[in-house]
Order: sequence, then C-alpha cells, then structure tokens
Amino acid sequence: MVSQRIQQMQSSPIRYLNKISETVQAKGVTVYHVNIGQPDIETPAILMDEIRNMEVSVLAYSPSSGLARTKDAFSAYYRSRGYAVDPEHVYMTNAGSEAILFALLAAADSGDSILVPEPFYTNYRSLAEVAGVHIKPVTTSLADNFRLPPYEELARMVDSRVKAVLFSNPGNPTGKVYDSEDMEKLRRLSEEFGIYLIADEVYSEIYYEGVSFVSALDLDDVSDHVIMVDSISKRYSACGARIGCIVSRSKTIIEHIEKLGQMRLCPPTIEQVGAAALSRLPREYYASIRERYERRRDVVCEGLRVIPGIAFHIPEGAFYTLIELPVENAKKFCEFLIGEFSFDDETVLLAPAEGFYMTPGLGVREVRMAFVLEEDKLRRTIELLGKGLQEYTRLHQNEIINMPPMPLDLVIEQSTYNWV
Amino acid sequence: MVSQRIQQMQSSPIRYLNKISETVQAKGVTVYHVNIGQPDIETPAILMDEIRNMEVSVLAYSPSSGLARTKDAFSAYYRSRGYAVDPEHVYMTNAGSEAILFALLAAADSGDSILVPEPFYTNYRSLAEVAGVHIKPVTTSLADNFRLPPYEELARMVDSRVKAVLFSNPGNPTGKVYDSEDMEKLRRLSEEFGIYLIADEVYSEIYYEGVSFVSALDLDDVSDHVIMVDSISKRYSACGARIGCIVSRSKTIIEHIEKLGQMRLCPPTIEQVGAAALSRLPREYYASIRERYERRRDVVCEGLRVIPGIAFHIPEGAFYTLIELPVENAKKFCEFLIGEFSFDDETVLLAPAEGFYMTPGLGVREVRMAFVLEEDKLRRTIELLGKGLQEYTRLHQNEIINMPPMPLDLVIEQSTYNWV
Repeated sequence: MVSQRIQQMQSSPIRYLNKISETVQAKGVTVYHVNIGQPDIETPAILMDEIRNMEVSVLAYSPSSGLARTKDAFSAYYRSRGYAVDPEHVYMTNAGSEAILFALLAAADSGDSILVPEPFYTNYRSLAEVAGVHIKPVTTSLADNFRLPPYEELARMVDSRVKAVLFSNPGNPTGKVYDSEDMEKLRRLSEEFGIYLIADEVYSEIYYEGVSFVSALDLDDVSDHVIMVDSISKRYSACGARIGCIVSRSKTIIEHIEKLGQMRLCPPTIEQVGAAALSRLPREYYASIRERYERRRDVVCEGLRVIPGIAFHIPEGAFYTLIELPVENAKKFCEFLIGEFSFDDETVLLAPAEGFYMTPGLGVREVRMAFVLEEDKLRRTIELLGKGLQEYTRLHQNEIINMPPMPLDLVIEQSTYNWV
Repeated sequence: MVSQRIQQMQSSPIRYLNKISETVQAKGVTVYHVNIGQPDIETPAILMDEIRNMEVSVLAYSPSSGLARTKDAFSAYYRSRGYAVDPEHVYMTNAGSEAILFALLAAADSGDSILVPEPFYTNYRSLAEVAGVHIKPVTTSLADNFRLPPYEELARMVDSRVKAVLFSNPGNPTGKVYDSEDMEKLRRLSEEFGIYLIADEVYSEIYYEGVSFVSALDLDDVSDHVIMVDSISKRYSACGARIGCIVSRSKTIIEHIEKLGQMRLCPPTIEQVGAAALSRLPREYYASIRERYERRRDVVCEGLRVIPGIAFHIPEGAFYTLIELPVENAKKFCEFLIGEFSFDDETVLLAPAEGFYMTPGLGVREVRMAFVLEEDKLRRTIELLGKGLQEYTRLHQNEIINMPPMPLDLVIEQSTYNWV
C-alpha cells in the first residue's frame, strides 16, 4: 500500500485535461493550449550555443550551490536590475520548484504553517505537503483585483506556528503585481512577527506599462527574512532547462540551504552552463519580451470584454488572466470545451481555477488563461471561448448564470468590472 | 529563525573536508581526491554529440515522467540486460537523489520507518529527514563482509511502522554486492510483511569477476513492491547530468509517483536528450568500464594489504572500499592527512566513514576510499596513506591501535582478513 500522503496528494489540476486533449487532437481537432504556462516565445539562441561549445571530458557534479560561473552570471543579472546581490547570495536549484521546496524546509518545521494568498500556483500545495507544512490561505478575489487584505487582517492570521508567507509576484494564476502598499504589508508582517517572506518572482521581468514592480529584494530592513525564488523558465522561455535559484542576503539561510543542496548533490551541469550565458543578454531583450506579452495581454483583454457575462482581471504582470465565467462549474465547462465542443474543428484548452484555491467553493466559476500563443491565435482562442460559452448556454440553460442567450455578434461591451 | 529540522540536518560528511583541501591545494600541495564518488572516466561522447545536434526553438517542459524517447531508451537498455521493463515502468527523475526521495514519499508516511543496512550512503539520512521517515539501521560489518543478518533478525525489526527497506546494491560505501541468499532475505521480508524494497542500483553495471549481481528486478513475485532507483551518473560518468529514474512494474507506484513528478514539472530536457543516446552504446562499453574499475580495485587491494594494521573489504562491486584504520578516530586522521601531512608536496583526501553509520560509535575507525583515479595515482594514493599512517603513529602513539611503529618498507602482509 502506498503512503496515505501520496494517496491524498492531488494530481495537477492544470494538466489533467491534457489526456482528453490528446484524444481529440488525434481525431484531427486543433486545440489552442492556453492551460499551462509553457511560453511559446523562442528561447534565446545563446543558451544552446553556449552548451554546444562546451568541452566535456567528464560531465562532473557541479558544486551543490551551483557552478561559480552561473552564480556570477546571476549576480551580474540582478545587479543589472539594481539589486545588490553577490554570488554568495545565490543558490542554484533544480528550477523554481526545488527552490520553493528548499525554502519551505528551511523556514518551517513539519506541522508549522505558512500564509499563502489564494488563488495560488497549484504546485505550492504539493510542495507544502511534502514539507509537511499547512497552508493557511489568505483569500484574495477578482472583484477586489487580488489585492491583499488590510494589514490587521493579515496580522490576525499569524499564530505561533506561522513561519512564512509564500507568494508569487507577479502572480500566477492572477497576473497580479503587488503595489508598494501590499508589499509594505508583507514587510511589516515579517518585521513584526519575524516570519520569512518566500517571494516567488519567476515572472519578475514580465510586468506591463504603468506598473511598478517591487521585488522582495527591495525590502532591505527585513532582508534577513527574505527568500527570493527565481527561475529562467519564464523570462527566457527555458522551462525545460530546470534552472532556478534561491536568492537571499541571509547568510544563515544560504548556509542551511546548503545542507539540502548537498542532499541532492547539484543542479544539472550542462543547463547551468547554458543558463550562465543568459546574463549576457542586453536589457533590451527583457523589454522586447515584456512588449510581446503586453500586446498579447491587450489582445486578450480586448477579446474578453465583448464576451457577455464574464469578468476577468486585467493582468499587470505574468502572462495569465483569471476569468469568471457565467457557468455554475467552470471545470465542467472546460471538459465540455475540450471533450464535446469544436468549431471548424478547433477548440480551446483552459485551466479550471478551482485547484488554485485552498478554500472549498472558491474559484468554481473561474478559469485561468495563459497568453502563450501568438496574437492571432489568442484572438481565435477567445472567439472559440465565446462560441463555446454560447453552445454551452444552449445545452445547459439551467447552469447559466446571468448570461442572456444572445448571439455573440450582437454583443456590445457587457463585461465592465476590471476593465479600466 | 530557520526550522529545527534544517538546523539538525547534517552537512555532508563526504564534502566537509573539501574546504581544507582547497586551502592546501592553493599552497601548492597535490591532493589525491578519493573521498567522493565522482568518476574520472570520460563520459561517452555520444551524450554531448546528441545534445549538440538538438534543434531547440523553445526549450519546453518535458512530460513529468520524462521524454518518450528517454523512457524508450531506458526500457531498451533494461531489456538488453534481460529485464522486462516497458517505457511505462520507467519514471525519469532528477538523478538518483530525487528518485529516492520520491520512493520514500510514496512508500512511507511521515513518522513511518524504513530499514536501511548500515553503513549506507550518507544522503539517505537527509532524504529520509525531508520525507519525515525514521531510519532503523540494520547493522552490517566489515568483519562479516557486510552480509545481511539472518532472516529472523531482519524480520524481528519489522513493526507496523516499517514500510520499506532502502538499500544500495552494489553497495556504496561498502562495495558489497548482495548474493542470492541476501536478496532472498529481502524478497521474503517484502512478501511476508508487504513492505517495499527500494533498491538503489546506480552501480548496477559495476561488479567484478566471479560476482553474480541479482537486481531487485529479478524478484518477480514481489514486483509490485519493488521500486528500483537508477541513474546515469556512475555507469556513464555523467554525474553532472542529473538524470535518473524510478523503475517499477507496479502501476500503482508509477501512478502515484506521477503526482510528485507533476509537483516539480519535469527533469531537465536537454540532459534527458543526451541520456537517451546512451542506450545506443554497445554492451562492450559496460564490460570495458567494469574492467577498468576491476583493475583499479585490484591495485587498491594489492596496495592496502601491505599496510600494517588495517582491514578492508575487497569490493565485489561499485568503486569503493571501506578501510578500518589502526587509529582511534579516522576523522581526525583524515583531517591530519589533508590539513597537516604531506609527502613530496602530495597528500590524500579520504571520506571518514562515521557518517555512513546511523548507530553511534560505529565506523569511527573507518574511511571510505573511492577508486576514481587512474591506477598509478591510486598506487601513489595508497603509498601516501601508508606514509601518513606512519607519521600519524609517530605523532599520536597513544591513539594507535595494534599498529607497530615499523617503517613501511619492512612490512610484509599484515592485513589478512578480507583478503582472499
């Protein structure tokens, strides 16, 4: 008999619809995959070029904390962004996932708790389960633009077992970027209660015009309690490299993380070499990525606002938006879209958002859409979503909430809130 | 404050002397590193060639269980060794370390126990700590050639919280290969108590003439409880690739491991591509590796047998031997060797064996030597070990056990047991 904990662990709610998708694709249906955060933008060629030029006699372990050249490169990159990060503040990991697991193990004991603003990246749940740490969700909502609750409310949630706040910023799945007011709440929490801030900033280069991004690395006076988690996956479209890191100015944190690092020996050497080369990219690279995602964000928002009965968050960063649909159960709708619906032999795969919430009942009507397709495909994706909703409306009238069964082409702007 | 568990976690006893080594090397001393299992044999060129030929537009996530081509390649490799392993029995991991962690999480709950023959690979301890699993050590000894205790003794150790036996075979740090009698004990344990056998077989191609290797995959009638852990690190000298896998014919195990796999998304894509190519190596490759290590094994044993007062295990597999030294504290001796001793500006870095034992007091006089240098260097390493012992004897007469302070060149064969 396998362990109770693994029996209880959830399968990824993001990926479970993929099997249905494979089946319908095999039947010739084109599926627009906007369910997972796998960017489609080309990985900078410099990564593979560097790897191709490697002279490998013995493919040896790197130091547990990473190759010196990679830590140097990451330090240089953070400095180019204005953060005083030295190579010894950087601990290379098997992508962001391992960095989060290490941070949890270092910050909290089994049986301790962490605060996590919900909706949150669904793998936080499994990682916390492996670490034996309870998640106390801090509920945020689309209606409130996913802002953090007032400081006093947050402070009331901190008991003696709460050891950290884990949050992603820019946010997955929300597309939220915390403003300086929200970041100040987190800073105060850390200062007042001595808890860690585990800041998942893997989307940190991706935020849009008019948005100010405040990194946890900006919170100088609690820097001993800041554990920033980073990854090359998103900003360089290099998900497959599995290269990430922990950045902390706390010598204590880095020294203790080293024990976990030694436990698994090292991150992959070849991909560390490739990752080191990325620091040579000019700042214009990041601007161009940001612009591409911003244009997509605009296309998505333009498209969504004319679909009747829906509400969505206008992303300030990352490449996701959460959409509330006029259906009772968004998961069923996603299954319908991928399993039953098609239009001109095309359909859409979305991620039901229920799995991003810890509190039962929340997010049941929401889906997450990732902007990981070119603009024309995103337009088509949204068109298909609209048509799918129409069809679903027709078939499941009793399940439709506030959605007049009107043809799409007659619709003018019905979605108002969150579109500014 | 960091967590209690990470404060209590031990730093790698294998690597801690490396810092001293770096210091003395900076002073111009040549250090023969036989302390860690980093092979020096060339990585097959086919691995990097395959990677250089990759066409990468977007470096994407692989499936969580690994690339189809890599699972196919591993399946083909196991079939070439005579094991009926299908691609769906293979779950690709971030090397053996992650495979062991996943196996522990799947086999046991937090608070459960596992049996582990000691001395054992020291990272088992940290991995078990992360999994919240207690290790009940099954003591084996150099004097008994690291054989498992009688079945009844093993059976008495199994209570309701014991969920698995974790063992490495061929053994690190022992060089032990379990014979069919020992493997039968493990099979019976699994059958009688329904516990898992987590078989770390990362050294499985490395066993020497006259030795029969019995894989856990041979134990057909408990195959539902066999979780074999493998890695390309050792047999292909590809430690830096961080590519390993779990092999299990239990559909339940693989299905549940998938949840852990999804949690960390996937193993590194580029290195998976490289690893897939390795299955094209002919069987002669493995024979040649085995022969090289066997010649080294012979050189090491020839050398050690003339050092007075020591005892050692003649390795049947892997590339390690455990050596009992005529000193009170082998750790102090290792520190002396690397920090104080040198001969013609050369010295040796060994791994103190105490950290490989769970039971306090065991292994205090033992060190592990890895045959990861060419034969002439191994000869020199052993010469330096002998001279170091002589010098240590002179300086620490009160700490020396059974070691006559005679010059090395007068010594004839004093070490008898374990040399057959």
